[in-house]
Amino acid sequence: MNPPTSIGIIGKPHQELTRTTVLDLMRFLEARGIEYHLDRDTAETCEVDQWIAKNQLVKQVDLLISLGGDGTVLGVARLLVGQSTPILAVNLGRLGFLTEVKVDQIFEVLEEVLAGHYRVDHRMMLCAHVHRRGECFGSHTVLNDIVINKGALARIIELELMVNEQFVTQYRSDGLIVSTPTGSTAYNLAANGPIIHPSLTNMIITPICPHMLTNRSIVIPADGVHLSINVKSHSSDVMLTLDGQVGVGLQTDDIIHISKSDSVINMITHPNKNYYAILKEKMKWAEI
Amino acid sequence: MNPPTSIGIIGKPHQELTRTTVLDLMRFLEARGIEYHLDRDTAETCEVDQWIAKNQLVKQVDLLISLGGDGTVLGVARLLVGQSTPILAVNLGRLGFLTEVKVDQIFEVLEEVLAGHYRVDHRMMLCAHVHRRGECFGSHTVLNDIVINKGALARIIELELMVNEQFVTQYRSDGLIVSTPTGSTAYNLAANGPIIHPSLTNMIITPICPHMLTNRSIVIPADGVHLSINVKSHSSDVMLTLDGQVGVGLQTDDIIHISKSDSVINMITHPNKNYYAILKEKMKWAEI
Amino acid sequence: MNPPTSIGIIGKPHQELTRTTVLDLMRFLEARGIEYHLDRDTAETCEVDQWIAKNQLVKQVDLLISLGGDGTVLGVARLLVGQSTPILAVNLGRLGFLTEVKVDQIFEVLEEVLAGHYRVDHRMMLCAHVHRRGECFGSHTVLNDIVINKGALARIIELELMVNEQFVTQYRSDGLIVSTPTGSTAYNLAANGPIIHPSLTNMIITPICPHMLTNRSIVIPADGVHLSINVKSHSSDVMLTLDGQVGVGLQTDDIIHISKSDSVINMITHPNKNYYAILKEKMKWAEI
Amino acid sequence: MNPPTSIGIIGKPHQELTRTTVLDLMRFLEARGIEYHLDRDTAETCEVDQWIAKNQLVKQVDLLISLGGDGTVLGVARLLVGQSTPILAVNLGRLGFLTEVKVDQIFEVLEEVLAGHYRVDHRMMLCAHVHRRGECFGSHTVLNDIVINKGALARIIELELMVNEQFVTQYRSDGLIVSTPTGSTAYNLAANGPIIHPSLTNMIITPICPHMLTNRSIVIPADGVHLSINVKSHSSDVMLTLDGQVGVGLQTDDIIHISKSDSVINMITHPNKNYYAILKEKMKWAEI
Repeated sequence: MNPPTSIGIIGKPHQELTRTTVLDLMRFLEARGIEYHLDRDTAETCEVDQWIAKNQLVKQVDLLISLGGDGTVLGVARLLVGQSTPILAVNLGRLGFLTEVKVDQIFEVLEEVLAGHYRVDHRMMLCAHVHRRGECFGSHTVLNDIVINKGALARIIELELMVNEQFVTQYRSDGLIVSTPTGSTAYNLAANGPIIHPSLTNMIITPICPHMLTNRSIVIPADGVHLSINVKSHSSDVMLTLDGQVGVGLQTDDIIHISKSDSVINMITHPNKNYYAILKEKMKWAEI
Repeated sequence: MNPPTSIGIIGKPHQELTRTTVLDLMRFLEARGIEYHLDRDTAETCEVDQWIAKNQLVKQVDLLISLGGDGTVLGVARLLVGQSTPILAVNLGRLGFLTEVKVDQIFEVLEEVLAGHYRVDHRMMLCAHVHRRGECFGSHTVLNDIVINKGALARIIELELMVNEQFVTQYRSDGLIVSTPTGSTAYNLAANGPIIHPSLTNMIITPICPHMLTNRSIVIPADGVHLSINVKSHSSDVMLTLDGQVGVGLQTDDIIHISKSDSVINMITHPNKNYYAILKEKMKWAEI
Repeated sequence: MNPPTSIGIIGKPHQELTRTTVLDLMRFLEARGIEYHLDRDTAETCEVDQWIAKNQLVKQVDLLISLGGDGTVLGVARLLVGQSTPILAVNLGRLGFLTEVKVDQIFEVLEEVLAGHYRVDHRMMLCAHVHRRGECFGSHTVLNDIVINKGALARIIELELMVNEQFVTQYRSDGLIVSTPTGSTAYNLAANGPIIHPSLTNMIITPICPHMLTNRSIVIPADGVHLSINVKSHSSDVMLTLDGQVGVGLQTDDIIHISKSDSVINMITHPNKNYYAILKEKMKWAEI
Repeated sequence: MNPPTSIGIIGKPHQELTRTTVLDLMRFLEARGIEYHLDRDTAETCEVDQWIAKNQLVKQVDLLISLGGDGTVLGVARLLVGQSTPILAVNLGRLGFLTEVKVDQIFEVLEEVLAGHYRVDHRMMLCAHVHRRGECFGSHTVLNDIVINKGALARIIELELMVNEQFVTQYRSDGLIVSTPTGSTAYNLAANGPIIHPSLTNMIITPICPHMLTNRSIVIPADGVHLSINVKSHSSDVMLTLDGQVGVGLQTDDIIHISKSDSVINMITHPNKNYYAILKEKMKWAEI
């Protein structure tokens, strides 16, 4: 791979470990004469004066370092839609499915990356377009999942699922998760969905507390497939949530159209880690 | 059993089938010289002038006829806390777990009841007391379930469960259901909980989409047991829901104390139906 | 597609409906001057004198009609390994996932097929090679699933899973299912696995009653992936079952190597049916 | 409680830890002038000459010490049917649901027990009577579970469940578990059943890999309830397994009658442990 020459650093704000790690990173990069940029929140957390707005930052760098948890990576990924800039995701706390590099491995891994010795995994994303009375009023791209769910007060919501214009089923449930393979180990897993290898190009459809007991997770191809979900419920308390981070209020008869994004996210992989080792550690499969 | 001499009728409002059924019931009871009363909503639905407020009504009658679905019965049951008045629950639509008498069987069953030929099932109830900063600010009795769950925007809530002052576990989940045996076939079932025979005196604790994959439903005795659930979550969007009908906003550090109610609900059972037959029909176990 | 000129007919033996349907089929094909062959069991069921051994039959025809249930198709599919001959799968009883054509639609569909008006779905298969003390003693190709499970007397078995030489986990369970997408709606579904669209090229790994509660179904790519399952258990009662039809006794330290077969099965699809419609019907999703 | 004056010791045979622990126990008891007896296997494991046959041993002692795992306790429990002799269950390995006393706590706990300072939990048991062509040919009492399951070769078994002579459902599955509350954390848990507090008097009915997706665990009263399970399957490979330890071959049309045993098992509880603490440790609920 090409060695990066300009690096963006985005950290979880208001964390002491972010501050010290970023300051170490800055020294490391300065010593090697490599340009770097911080976004505003990260700069403020580190008491550094210079920053660039996030959406500008991502256009000026050829490597992005994400410091934090899986949530930090999800936010960075949404900024990168349409770009091929790779992400080096470092966890500041415990191992995440998206953050396989530990903070004390950062310089060792970065040396390799700066020498062009690294591999990237391509992760598919999903696009959601929300239509109300025939007009699109919102478009969102996610790395993990698109969730439609009820508020705390609503009793149940009804959602109609179509795949490529064909009616599949009507869910009466707390909600519905449409997940990427990357997102399969997030909310999908809590809702009893399967683990899907992140190299696959699939959509995973998992109902949340379905009243029809035969409703199960369905895994379908993502290429050439177009889902639409029709909000049949008359509740005023239905929400669309993107990657667990962005919320959009929904109304009866809104339709959410979901398809594979043209963009992929390029995640730099840890040379000594692999998916199954991370899975085993996160799922505690080694224990007896 | 003692034949009833004064009957209350509470129907699902704004339904044509309620109107016609109540009018038929009135004629039936008048022909037999039996006193009856309607609540306001039912009277208005039937275009009848005379009514008594619900909370008065339940004190003046020695039989309550509920016309509607399981939801109608749940509302009636909460009115009856502290009283032994039996409920004859008639379904106006499809068979419910609480409404085993069909509308076209109503007069046949009522004849038997008026002759004192009937059996009642005692159904246990649960009490919830909500404490905030050391003070109780609400007390509720339910026939089905006490649910603590997150709103559509919240990502996860953290709840700490104590049983008789002993720490059991901390849930990171969408919420938690504490159900009676009667409520086990309601929300509990959608959240993967077990079916519990309604004659048992148990509490069923079922997490909703738990992030810890080893969290399972736990069934514990209801006699002599006191649960407390501590809201650890810092979300502002946590709700307590009683029987799926009454909602109370919760805050961080609120504690919900749950124990068996001293009251039971007396449900008149259909002479030719039994629990397993209803279960088989509702769960579609006869189909192949 | 090319219109078939020689047709093989394999039916579920000892069924009156097989006999009458095959006799009707024979008349239909004779009237059109199209060559056909029966295997021995089918011929005997129909009291017909002429037959060809199954493994010869499949080489002489360019269309195979399977009459029976999903089990009949699974048997025909294993005969066809290495050949591209399409299968027209007709169900003699209730709708199956593999047998979407009903017996009373057979002639209508066959007219279209004989005119070359048909579409085939390619279904991936899996290969299992069983090794004992370093030597391969059996090789099997399946359309649905490869199952390793314990006998009725054994208490638990221990199986070690490697993917591409990497240790994934050790299962302590009643067994393990490795399923194709086609097989995902068979045994896998009963063991709580997900539904996988049959056009996908995946393997689904689902433990049967795992004692480690965090063990879940995993869906992985089938291309370029090589599974190996090591029988660690010291029980004498462990069995390998192929498509639920062929059984092979296993011993401690046997290794089962699993990879995608080079062969696919070509299933003729019903012009008016589609996967989601069949799924909805089989899963009873239309009911309320 | 009465201090015990004669103690039986039954250990897991062929274990070095059994040998050293029993020898320590013998010295401890001799020093206090307390009579003790070993069964044959334990005596041989400890190279001790004197032993009494197990079924005699249990009649001569007023305390039984079980050394091993949950399996050792299950075996001891079946010997004690009809007797009230308490069991002190010591685990020689990792914590079990039935063996809450660790080997290094044994003398401390035993001092308390010998002083009469101990509490016992009563655990209900289940009885199974197997009928073939109208005659009972076997009767068994279990502390954990009664399991009917298929062998490795059989595809599916069909079992018809009656509760108090009423038809409930027909299972098409790998098998069926009828568990006591004590057994709910054993095989039942692996088959997706709920955790039931061991003080309850319930039966838990959990199907193993049911093909009907609406089949769920059912918890019913054990008092006054009589289950019967009819083996409808035509497979020759169906087995009844008692506590995972004793197997009985079943045939088509065999009927297994199950009801609560008149006996209970008296388990000495650890003064500083409680059910929820053990549950939390075994289920790893404390971990994050």
